[in-house]
Amino acid sequence: MASITILGAGNVGQHFAKALHQAGHQIVQVYNRTPRRLQALMPYLPPTTQFTTHLQQLLPHNGLYLIAVADDAVAAVAQTMPAVPGVVAHTSGATPMSVLVKHPRRGIFYPLQTFTAAHTVHFEQVPFCIDAALPHDAEFLQAIAQTLSPRVYAITDEQRRILHVAAVFANNFTNHLLAIADDLCKTNGVPFEILKPLIAETLKKTEQQPPRNVQTGPAKRADAQTIAQHLALLQNQPHYQQLYRLLSESIGKMYHGNP
Amino acid sequence: MASITILGAGNVGQHFAKALHQAGHQIVQVYNRTPRRLQALMPYLPPTTQFTTHLQQLLPHNGLYLIAVADDAVAAVAQTMPAVPGVVAHTSGATPMSVLVKHPRRGIFYPLQTFTAAHTVHFEQVPFCIDAALPHDAEFLQAIAQTLSPRVYAITDEQRRILHVAAVFANNFTNHLLAIADDLCKTNGVPFEILKPLIAETLKKTEQQPPRNVQTGPAKRADAQTIAQHLALLQNQPHYQQLYRLLSESIGKMYHGNP
Repeated sequence: MASITILGAGNVGQHFAKALHQAGHQIVQVYNRTPRRLQALMPYLPPTTQFTTHLQQLLPHNGLYLIAVADDAVAAVAQTMPAVPGVVAHTSGATPMSVLVKHPRRGIFYPLQTFTAAHTVHFEQVPFCIDAALPHDAEFLQAIAQTLSPRVYAITDEQRRILHVAAVFANNFTNHLLAIADDLCKTNGVPFEILKPLIAETLKKTEQQPPRNVQTGPAKRADAQTIAQHLALLQNQPHYQQLYRLLSESIGKMYHGNP
Repeated sequence: MASITILGAGNVGQHFAKALHQAGHQIVQVYNRTPRRLQALMPYLPPTTQFTTHLQQLLPHNGLYLIAVADDAVAAVAQTMPAVPGVVAHTSGATPMSVLVKHPRRGIFYPLQTFTAAHTVHFEQVPFCIDAALPHDAEFLQAIAQTLSPRVYAITDEQRRILHVAAVFANNFTNHLLAIADDLCKTNGVPFEILKPLIAETLKKTEQQPPRNVQTGPAKRADAQTIAQHLALLQNQPHYQQLYRLLSESIGKMYHGNP
């Protein structure tokens, strides 16, 4: 089991601190810029864990320093924190390893999952994308990841960037479309509940077949009449109308080669 | 149990013919414009069922005539078929009841589900949206729907139109985004498998909370740096880039009130 310092006690940092502690690792210290989130985390960690709001007070050890702050703060934290004997890894899908250049033992510990505070994360189902500057450190990070999940992948910076964009499409954008569907229902007095089996079915199909092979709907059928009716129906929501048009064009392009 | 004639032996018609037969109804006759699909369906129906490629040969009965043809063919089939003693209902989400005006006993029998030939449909989980010109016929259609599913809703033309648009967002468009994510992975040598737990998680959340409350990602965080990086990464796929931009703007508008 490893000694681990967590930098950042937001959603991602909190989920990691709890899960790594539960997996038997020693959470040496948790850093957060402000004290409030540290206090929220304290009841979940053993009395031996230190808490600090000052990067200069990081305790030295030979284990893992996990930077779990917002993507745009990773570079600053890595640069400001002192040199440490252990491996410095960040959890960001969008940030290259090079922002950790100050630390010769640097790496990536990226969980490909969406974290919201309210929702329990089952780490055993989360794929971990691991990389490191030194092969021995990659093995160390992989071993830690394997204590959380059986799905551990060696992924380069370039592959991770692609995965992150793909995840935005597959998760953030799909969720937004569900929010739009919900909004359309609410605005028109139709229960969103009616759509839930359809949504579940959509996702279930993905388990079994490539999404490209199970596309349905007016744009797939090139059903211009229905598309026109839907666009007319959305005329008071020009914003949704524009999305409907562009997504239908995109489907047309994928299946019918329309420009 | 009702006497039922199915008009159309495409995906929807075939699923209905099999399910209604299994639910104990008498499938009197199946019509399809071409014989090939009728032949495919024959082994699943009893020897008493008639098959025809001529609308003028429809047998008269007092039950249900279910028009399960493509959306843009519903009006023509309803107009061309002879006057019948039973209820004439169509299964289209996008088509008003008025296209059945020739038939005084007209109605809607709309399953809010996506049908692909390869995939088994579990009708017991499908919500049915029912409407009819005459109250007694609405009860008749509801009773038939209840033999397939416990989720039966009385839904007006206007509500059904909204539901259909919302379903395009929640199902067709989300599936397309998954197909784009798959394409991005394939093009860049990353296994799409890695994204599947994230996709499953996205859907599971919807079961529990409104999608609006669980939105995550760069656009939700207003993380301009990551958005710019992703747009740069998609520069060789201007089409995906445009979708990324518009969807991010839409998320910005929903959560941050950006124009």
